[in-house]
Amino acid sequence: MNIREWERSSLAPETARELRMLVEEFNSEYCSVLDAGEIEKWPEFFTDDALYRLTARENVDAGLPVGLVYAEGKGMLIDRAVSISRTQTFAPRYNLHVCGNVRVLHQLENGDIIARTNFILLQTLVDGPTSLHLAGCYHDRFVTHGEGLLIKERQAIYDTTVIANDVVFPV
Amino acid sequence: MNIREWERSSLAPETARELRMLVEEFNSEYCSVLDAGEIEKWPEFFTDDALYRLTARENVDAGLPVGLVYAEGKGMLIDRAVSISRTQTFAPRYNLHVCGNVRVLHQLENGDIIARTNFILLQTLVDGPTSLHLAGCYHDRFVTHGEGLLIKERQAIYDTTVIANDVVFPV
Amino acid sequence: MNIREWERSSLAPETARELRMLVEEFNSEYCSVLDAGEIEKWPEFFTDDALYRLTARENVDAGLPVGLVYAEGKGMLIDRAVSISRTQTFAPRYNLHVCGNVRVLHQLENGDIIARTNFILLQTLVDGPTSLHLAGCYHDRFVTHGEGLLIKERQAIYDTTVIANDVVFPV
Repeated sequence: MNIREWERSSLAPETARELRMLVEEFNSEYCSVLDAGEIEKWPEFFTDDALYRLTARENVDAGLPVGLVYAEGKGMLIDRAVSISRTQTFAPRYNLHVCGNVRVLHQLENGDIIARTNFILLQTLVDGPTSLHLAGCYHDRFVTHGEGLLIKERQAIYDTTVIANDVVFPV
Repeated sequence: MNIREWERSSLAPETARELRMLVEEFNSEYCSVLDAGEIEKWPEFFTDDALYRLTARENVDAGLPVGLVYAEGKGMLIDRAVSISRTQTFAPRYNLHVCGNVRVLHQLENGDIIARTNFILLQTLVDGPTSLHLAGCYHDRFVTHGEGLLIKERQAIYDTTVIANDVVFPV
Repeated sequence: MNIREWERSSLAPETARELRMLVEEFNSEYCSVLDAGEIEKWPEFFTDDALYRLTARENVDAGLPVGLVYAEGKGMLIDRAVSISRTQTFAPRYNLHVCGNVRVLHQLENGDIIARTNFILLQTLVDGPTSLHLAGCYHDRFVTHGEGLLIKERQAIYDTTVIANDVVFPV
């Protein structure tokens, strides 16, 4: 998918709204797990064959395929989650996500849902102020799963080119 | 209620969504009154026996029960609102709230609604830049009231440990 | 309309919610076009006779009628869009909007919809950090158009009095 250009939704308004509600609810759960620091639950939001990529918008603009974090398959996501939850060499911090401006663009023939969600990630280092850590847009492909969704592909594309401190946690 | 751990919603999706809509609408009204500086209207969003607490996440983590602001009962909320609206000893400022990521966790047998909402409070001092004043999560217990809601308990738990200037207004 | 005082919605809850959904969806599209930098599409969100005004809250408080940007009619909006898209004398930047706290206040006899939406505009200069560029509230009058909306009047009233760099793009 082309992730740079503005794209109009191909969906009927009532379908787009119903799917938007699902995406909003999914993202609230996803972010609340990360904000609670329960990173070992993070891979549960993905399909077995999911792709996760955290990358800068300028990398996307330059056509660079990888990024700051790149994981293919739930196994790699679990590896990452476990390694972070066992690592204590980075400064303790609180994360807080605020999502908004959800747009559901398409539903493919196989049912996959293509959506965009803007996010702000605030970070507070212990004894420090709260700072705007990362801001950007999730470019997602979801599959339906029971009454909810799972991520088949999430590209978290952040505008921020200068990051105040290390990115340890997923976004 | 345990306010640290991540908790899965116990509600059916359609119930959770209906209540989420109510909570979103409630918070938009609540915040718009504060953003307009009409603080004397603030207590009207609470039940007579409501509890309001504004506290840091690190206080919650340490098990400290009180916080920066603690009020039990509408009388204390009114006292606070009146005293702020009559005080002019602090620098004039604009407040702006942006809420997101609403999650409705439970509806109790008596109908009380347990919900979480992330918030960002931006503050602009006159002749100063806009700064990220506080960011955190409302931990709420609502009761239904007519077609809307009232707060029975609101814990506004902010991540921010270093606050750029005094917290005068409620959040 | 008085844009300073807090105002209660005159709408039945179910009407207010239905219109809120439309406003949220409209704003997500509007902002995504600006965030994509496709400014030549910006005038398409307005009626032919639309009024657009970008101004500081302190100007509104002081009763000043104009503002940083003032355009009456789609022609002026198109002029502005074209002139920006052809100008390369400002530093390249990424914009990211996050909207929230939508409130639909009234629906007039002619069907016009009066609404408020808080917005945060983050800006990232190339090789710079992401900064909180502007935060404020859209004071809008919409008309229905097919299954969606068009802006008849948008007053983007920002709290921010000190702006870190020039406002080039519309908000």
